[in-house]
Amino acid sequence: MTKITGQLGKEFIKTNANRLNQAQVKHYQRFALEATKMGRPAELLFERLADLSGYGKKVRAGLISLGYQLAGGQNQSLVDQLGLFIELFHTGLLIHDDLMDQDETRRGQDSLHVQFEKIGQKAKLGDPSLYGLSQAILAGDLAFYLSWQILLESELEPDKLIGLSQAYSSYTTRIVYGQCLDVQQKKIGQLAKADILEVIRLKTAEYSGMMPLEIGAIAGGLAASELDKLKKYGLAFGWAFQVQDDLLGLFGQQKKLGKPIGSDVREGKNTLLMLELFERGSQAQRQRQLELLGKDDISLEEVEEMRQLVKDSGAYDQVKQLGLNYAQQAVNWADRLQGSKQIKETLQSLAVYMMERMV
Amino acid sequence: MTKITGQLGKEFIKTNANRLNQAQVKHYQRFALEATKMGRPAELLFERLADLSGYGKKVRAGLISLGYQLAGGQNQSLVDQLGLFIELFHTGLLIHDDLMDQDETRRGQDSLHVQFEKIGQKAKLGDPSLYGLSQAILAGDLAFYLSWQILLESELEPDKLIGLSQAYSSYTTRIVYGQCLDVQQKKIGQLAKADILEVIRLKTAEYSGMMPLEIGAIAGGLAASELDKLKKYGLAFGWAFQVQDDLLGLFGQQKKLGKPIGSDVREGKNTLLMLELFERGSQAQRQRQLELLGKDDISLEEVEEMRQLVKDSGAYDQVKQLGLNYAQQAVNWADRLQGSKQIKETLQSLAVYMMERMV
Repeated sequence: MTKITGQLGKEFIKTNANRLNQAQVKHYQRFALEATKMGRPAELLFERLADLSGYGKKVRAGLISLGYQLAGGQNQSLVDQLGLFIELFHTGLLIHDDLMDQDETRRGQDSLHVQFEKIGQKAKLGDPSLYGLSQAILAGDLAFYLSWQILLESELEPDKLIGLSQAYSSYTTRIVYGQCLDVQQKKIGQLAKADILEVIRLKTAEYSGMMPLEIGAIAGGLAASELDKLKKYGLAFGWAFQVQDDLLGLFGQQKKLGKPIGSDVREGKNTLLMLELFERGSQAQRQRQLELLGKDDISLEEVEEMRQLVKDSGAYDQVKQLGLNYAQQAVNWADRLQGSKQIKETLQSLAVYMMERMV
Repeated sequence: MTKITGQLGKEFIKTNANRLNQAQVKHYQRFALEATKMGRPAELLFERLADLSGYGKKVRAGLISLGYQLAGGQNQSLVDQLGLFIELFHTGLLIHDDLMDQDETRRGQDSLHVQFEKIGQKAKLGDPSLYGLSQAILAGDLAFYLSWQILLESELEPDKLIGLSQAYSSYTTRIVYGQCLDVQQKKIGQLAKADILEVIRLKTAEYSGMMPLEIGAIAGGLAASELDKLKKYGLAFGWAFQVQDDLLGLFGQQKKLGKPIGSDVREGKNTLLMLELFERGSQAQRQRQLELLGKDDISLEEVEEMRQLVKDSGAYDQVKQLGLNYAQQAVNWADRLQGSKQIKETLQSLAVYMMERMV
């Protein structure tokens, strides 16, 4: 058996993102016009939202496309519509998440509430922080509503539109509950491992892996038995995605991350690495972990120290291996799928690519 | 012609709200179970949302019911589903609005972010204000997603479900833009009358009047020519609704309002009364208005002074007359509708009731 590399998957994601950005320019013209008619504040709100939406890697849109193609679907403009739908929805989620997590950077840009804080400050629109908050809440809401509008006006046949919307809808409430659990779990050591894993399952594995594949598959009319295998691929893929995100969050470079080095640590995020360190670390290592995790003014030296703790305790190797196992599971599930060899190979390469994103 | 009173409309709204509260208990059981399975934080989030949803007057659900019945629709459980859909969505809007406007009271209760601030404080969950903010953003998002789920799982036929969703969807983005304009217009005198009227049109007249009637009418399959008249009724009704809200906001009693006396003035809200006072008032009256409007620590005496300014300047009579004119327009449009005499009379009485809510 030839060794699977991430090359094909990486290229697919890149090509897909470029195509979708072109589709966005065309598709958003009408939205932009509608906003402009409402006056400058509305125009600015839409403009900032659309801009942020353009920066994503668009992995979820890629999965929709693969699920659809696997089912034999051939309507490229429908794929674009569904891709724009999910990426706009996702951008809305991120905007609200950044508010809750007080994240100041997103996709290499100021996060949306920070952008509007600066705009409000310059234009002297009252309390800049309240202004930033308000506009970010509104931008997230607008993203949800507009994304539904894209879906409702897509070229999907009525029965598929309804089935797909129902499937999507049952995921959305689970994302909220996942974030709700996450917001409350700021202190590691005070919470069960099962709860952290549940958050990851709801917020990433299901939403970022299973859901987009299911949406694509429903749109393409995939048979139920195949859908089941594809969803299992998606769940494993989603876990690998999350593992690699956690690794990148601590060991990645700022440019690739789109956010400052060590921000996961400063925010006190309960990543898989932190969970593993807390479980495996010595008494002294755990104590140092708790001192550093969530430290507001953490220095680069201290971030480096946390990296060392994670490596020394064996947490790094353990989590990395977990990710590789999930990627392998995904590869195996893809192998069992029927349908186009090329699509199956792209799915497999994509799972491998997830774990290759940082070497 | 017999003089139309608001009695029939008032009774209809009350009966409708009671029936919908019963339907909510039944319908929300599954949602509550799902939330409980996700753990206590999720359960609490849903519970507080459902509780707040129960307190509304449910005027929009009433309008859906009337639009549906006018079209000859007879499926009462569908009416309940659509009513729950719109009222849950509306509750989500209010939760996000209260965050942006920093309103501390809603429907006679603590507004949702304040409820969670208190919960967070008691449970020592980090910064209470950030906790309240996060949970309120999530509760609003949850309301949007769950309301959509109710709609998608309703007993509507596929073509009506899609048509109705598309109509609804085009209103939702306009609500966001309306609120976006509103948030920026905190200083009267710095903005055009047209902008204030645009905000009211987007946020109330269209959304609270036209939209629910259109939803009900589409669900019932009303003919296009009748729908046009019904929407004109809805727009006039919505304006009367807003006029009376503005009058109540300054002259109403705390119990009826569900929020502290004078809160519109303290928040510096650009109501129709404030606009009219600013346009009609003498130099001295305008100056005093600007001193009082948005005053953080406004006293009851100063609220009374603002009332006097509004009366003395003639703004009160002018705005009241505007509302009565809109109510009359609504009555006239209802008169031109075909269909059940009883429904038409209820619509007419409801428009009159809007202006009777406070004498």
